[in-house]
Amino acid sequence: MKQTIGNLKQLIRAGRGIVPAHTVVCGGTLVNVMTSEVYPADVAIYEDTIVAVGDVSEYIGTETKTIDATGKFLTPGLIDGHIHSECSKLSITSFAKAVVPCGTTSIISGLDEYISVSGLEGLQEVFEEVKASPLKVFWGAPYKTPYTFPQSTVAFNFTKEVHHIVQQWPECFGVWETVREYIQEEDEDTLGAIEEATKNRLPVFGCAPMARGKELNGYLCAGIRLDHESYDHEEVVEKMRKGMHMLIRESSVTHFLEENIRAVTEVNPYLARRVSFCTDDVTATDVIEKGHLDNVVRLAIQAGVAPMTAIQMATINSAEAYRIDHMVGSICPGRLADILFVDSLESFKVEAVMTKGCLVAENGKLNYDLQAPARSEVLTSPLKCAMTTKEDFEYKVGITNGTAKVLSMDVKGPFVRKRRDVELKVENGIVLPDTEQDALMVSVLERFGRNGNKSLAFCSGWKLKKGAMASSAAPDDNNLIVMGADAADMSLAVNHLIENGGGQVVVADGKVLEFLPLPVGGIASDLEPADIAYRETLLSKAANELGCDLPEPLMYMFFLPITAIPDYAITDVGPVDCIALTTFDPILELTQK
Amino acid sequence: MKQTIGNLKQLIRAGRGIVPAHTVVCGGTLVNVMTSEVYPADVAIYEDTIVAVGDVSEYIGTETKTIDATGKFLTPGLIDGHIHSECSKLSITSFAKAVVPCGTTSIISGLDEYISVSGLEGLQEVFEEVKASPLKVFWGAPYKTPYTFPQSTVAFNFTKEVHHIVQQWPECFGVWETVREYIQEEDEDTLGAIEEATKNRLPVFGCAPMARGKELNGYLCAGIRLDHESYDHEEVVEKMRKGMHMLIRESSVTHFLEENIRAVTEVNPYLARRVSFCTDDVTATDVIEKGHLDNVVRLAIQAGVAPMTAIQMATINSAEAYRIDHMVGSICPGRLADILFVDSLESFKVEAVMTKGCLVAENGKLNYDLQAPARSEVLTSPLKCAMTTKEDFEYKVGITNGTAKVLSMDVKGPFVRKRRDVELKVENGIVLPDTEQDALMVSVLERFGRNGNKSLAFCSGWKLKKGAMASSAAPDDNNLIVMGADAADMSLAVNHLIENGGGQVVVADGKVLEFLPLPVGGIASDLEPADIAYRETLLSKAANELGCDLPEPLMYMFFLPITAIPDYAITDVGPVDCIALTTFDPILELTQK
Repeated sequence: MKQTIGNLKQLIRAGRGIVPAHTVVCGGTLVNVMTSEVYPADVAIYEDTIVAVGDVSEYIGTETKTIDATGKFLTPGLIDGHIHSECSKLSITSFAKAVVPCGTTSIISGLDEYISVSGLEGLQEVFEEVKASPLKVFWGAPYKTPYTFPQSTVAFNFTKEVHHIVQQWPECFGVWETVREYIQEEDEDTLGAIEEATKNRLPVFGCAPMARGKELNGYLCAGIRLDHESYDHEEVVEKMRKGMHMLIRESSVTHFLEENIRAVTEVNPYLARRVSFCTDDVTATDVIEKGHLDNVVRLAIQAGVAPMTAIQMATINSAEAYRIDHMVGSICPGRLADILFVDSLESFKVEAVMTKGCLVAENGKLNYDLQAPARSEVLTSPLKCAMTTKEDFEYKVGITNGTAKVLSMDVKGPFVRKRRDVELKVENGIVLPDTEQDALMVSVLERFGRNGNKSLAFCSGWKLKKGAMASSAAPDDNNLIVMGADAADMSLAVNHLIENGGGQVVVADGKVLEFLPLPVGGIASDLEPADIAYRETLLSKAANELGCDLPEPLMYMFFLPITAIPDYAITDVGPVDCIALTTFDPILELTQK
Repeated sequence: MKQTIGNLKQLIRAGRGIVPAHTVVCGGTLVNVMTSEVYPADVAIYEDTIVAVGDVSEYIGTETKTIDATGKFLTPGLIDGHIHSECSKLSITSFAKAVVPCGTTSIISGLDEYISVSGLEGLQEVFEEVKASPLKVFWGAPYKTPYTFPQSTVAFNFTKEVHHIVQQWPECFGVWETVREYIQEEDEDTLGAIEEATKNRLPVFGCAPMARGKELNGYLCAGIRLDHESYDHEEVVEKMRKGMHMLIRESSVTHFLEENIRAVTEVNPYLARRVSFCTDDVTATDVIEKGHLDNVVRLAIQAGVAPMTAIQMATINSAEAYRIDHMVGSICPGRLADILFVDSLESFKVEAVMTKGCLVAENGKLNYDLQAPARSEVLTSPLKCAMTTKEDFEYKVGITNGTAKVLSMDVKGPFVRKRRDVELKVENGIVLPDTEQDALMVSVLERFGRNGNKSLAFCSGWKLKKGAMASSAAPDDNNLIVMGADAADMSLAVNHLIENGGGQVVVADGKVLEFLPLPVGGIASDLEPADIAYRETLLSKAANELGCDLPEPLMYMFFLPITAIPDYAITDVGPVDCIALTTFDPILELTQK
């Protein structure tokens, strides 16, 4: 849907029925999300655009292809209002294979993990990959990177000067995930990004978990339009009363729908108008087992939302929140032809998917062989990180033997780490991890060849009895993270990833147990979604066998560098106190013996 | 509400309660249009921006001003979704005096009449006038001028090259009133304006009266977002099913609300979500007698719309349609402090008005003396038009004596002229107007010094028995229009306007009966609204006394150059067939005697 004079002329003629449609969808029942009506209607399509809805008999020419939709409900393609597709470890191509058959035809994304590992050059390459895929990405320019912590290291630093350039790109639809603390701290790059967005008429997307009262007011005064992260329905209600659009997140690791939807089902049904959905982070396994946005629609219906309302939340509401409703979110003339063929509004099973005018998926699968693009060195260069030895993962202190009281980051949820004080043995000047006390070592190694940073700290909750695991995918910086009960195994895990251009690995006793290569920027893979899911299962199983009983051992680990959520995190510059936004010394007390 | 880094810092601090509010509004009941809820809430304001809503006790400092709103409902300022304020003949300053006390704090306007008489230089001067007024204007760049008829003459031609420049101005919020026929004809300037709008992320506003079926589809394929002109509620329903935002127009001359609101009250209440209001053209008399947008809200309530819904239509719905809901349309932190103090939701009497954080009107009047700005020559230059003689208004034909069958444009409504064939006498080579048959002469004189064009044709329906009337305000070209039963009086009327720098005049028997000077561009006046209303009444009365029984004799005349609506119009290049979009010869047949 290019809006050049030439394209507009073609579309106008097609809309007027002067040139015949390329495709008509006949016999279906239209779910009109603009009017909350359901009625029989055919759809005429010219190239990638819907040109007529209703009686389209006059749009049919000799070359027009007819698609039979008898017995099917036609809904707009679903929009994921906030997702880091990279966190699924699926490349855009693989991600499209996973989610498009579920009915997700558009995502709003910062593609920020790609930027953190490959800068704008890598991003441009991903844009090309998107164009060749059946998925649309409405890109938001990250408000600033690194957004973990100003001192931490990424391949590319996103500043206000970068916003000055990229906000003018046609791919840019807003400012991505502006974290509350950066507004509160009056960060110059973040406010500069907002200043640019005002000039460029772009909305600013938010990220303000648990923002309430005065802090929420301050945040809103910066012009933030929407948020995708509320921890309870009362938070949702307050944000909406104060004018925000709300995305309810139902990710693989945080299940907020059941609680947040109460804002609509219990407090005020009118709120539904500005509520939409996102999945933020999903695993391939989850998508294969449960579905994607279609599953969120089903969950909403199960929670008591009327099917029409739930479908609106997954389509037009997101489109309006992001001001892309002129392109997607409804089946109307002039919009992109993203149309789902659904069995019933109640069960909401997506049986076929049309994107940009082409029927691309049927019965849960793409109906053609989508190939990943050849990739340049920008996205496939080796990890720029020196090989390690076991000494790199030994915590050295100023006493030879004795005990160290350390602050161990104790995982309490996928993103939440709380303080846990543990007393560990010191032998030969080294603080020893202790599997009996569930105190492991964790380290982040800078991997973009910028400074060779390496941090080291303590963590709890993973319960590995031996071995180590590592990942070069680790939002948001995507430095190399490794965790283990044993320094030699940690070194082995890291070295294996360096030698293989990135991935995720579980090792023990000097042996690699499972390995998932992630050759695309060290964070994603072009493997089939089912392959990735299978290998993820193997990785989890290996970690489980080493003693870990978390639902997603590696995912819980790879979120460790995220500093946006209290209380603790770790980046390449050190363990971070997420409230004070400073690094901290994990050694609380040393006792020489 | 400037969104520079510096301003953002101030606002964030004010929102967080770190610096005290300038003003708090206490004791009122909030009409929360975002959530359809009504509850007690105070409002804290910093400079022109709302920074907190709810309990604002922590925002009060020693210098904070408190405004008592006990017993009042607080609603957002009203937004007129489509208006040519100039057509009221009130300058921006006078218009603000008229409508702001009624609660209209924002208008969407092309300011196109100003552009047609004074170009971009005049427009910039008007922008400055807006800033000094309590009214906000969200400007849409006219899709093209002249939009009467390509060959007709205006002071400034708006082309796609102009769009390339002006769409980047911060005052620009979209493309104004894109008329359907120009889309259908695939006009290069119009499509170029849309191409630019896509690049600049601006919505395209429409004007598609009676567009249905395939022509509506073609129109929508050009990406038109909204429309303000539907002739019945079924047209409203079709446009909304096809994805448009609908503005219901209730102007001084066309009363569409009663019919159009049936789309909501009878067909589908859900449509209300994307319905809003506009007045398009209003007379000062009307505003003084009935009110402005507040009156439209009351009419909607009388028609069966719930008060909350009617208020949403006049506030947030327009703001969302025009994508300005981040600035206006709700009482939320981060929005401009445009707040109405209303007696009750049912009677909706606006008792006081705050705009941009200042209480500017109470009890139907501005509470301070708003002065019109000094004006440059751009907006006050004399009419660039040669003085006329009676011969200029004599229709000469190729026979000396006999009869002429002529096509007289017969007025059937403010914008509608139908064909009426009349047989007139020809004497001494001149076709004589005939008051017995109600066939008058009408002429449009180019008045910008560009080419000296002058057209002459016949019209019916005004029923003047003698004399003439003329106006230099005559949308959309604003050339000088004159109509009369007598060529000498027509010349007198025109010359009086030329000598006096523009205005409206009624003459008879060689004498000026009534004159309203319009020194601002020949189209508007800085007089008080009540003065203008009074003088309009005198003009109407004078025309009535000459025999005219139309409700607004001069307004019906000054719409004669509008070519957008079938069947006939007249511009400086001649009478126009609005369907074929060509000029036509009004002489159908000559019979020599």
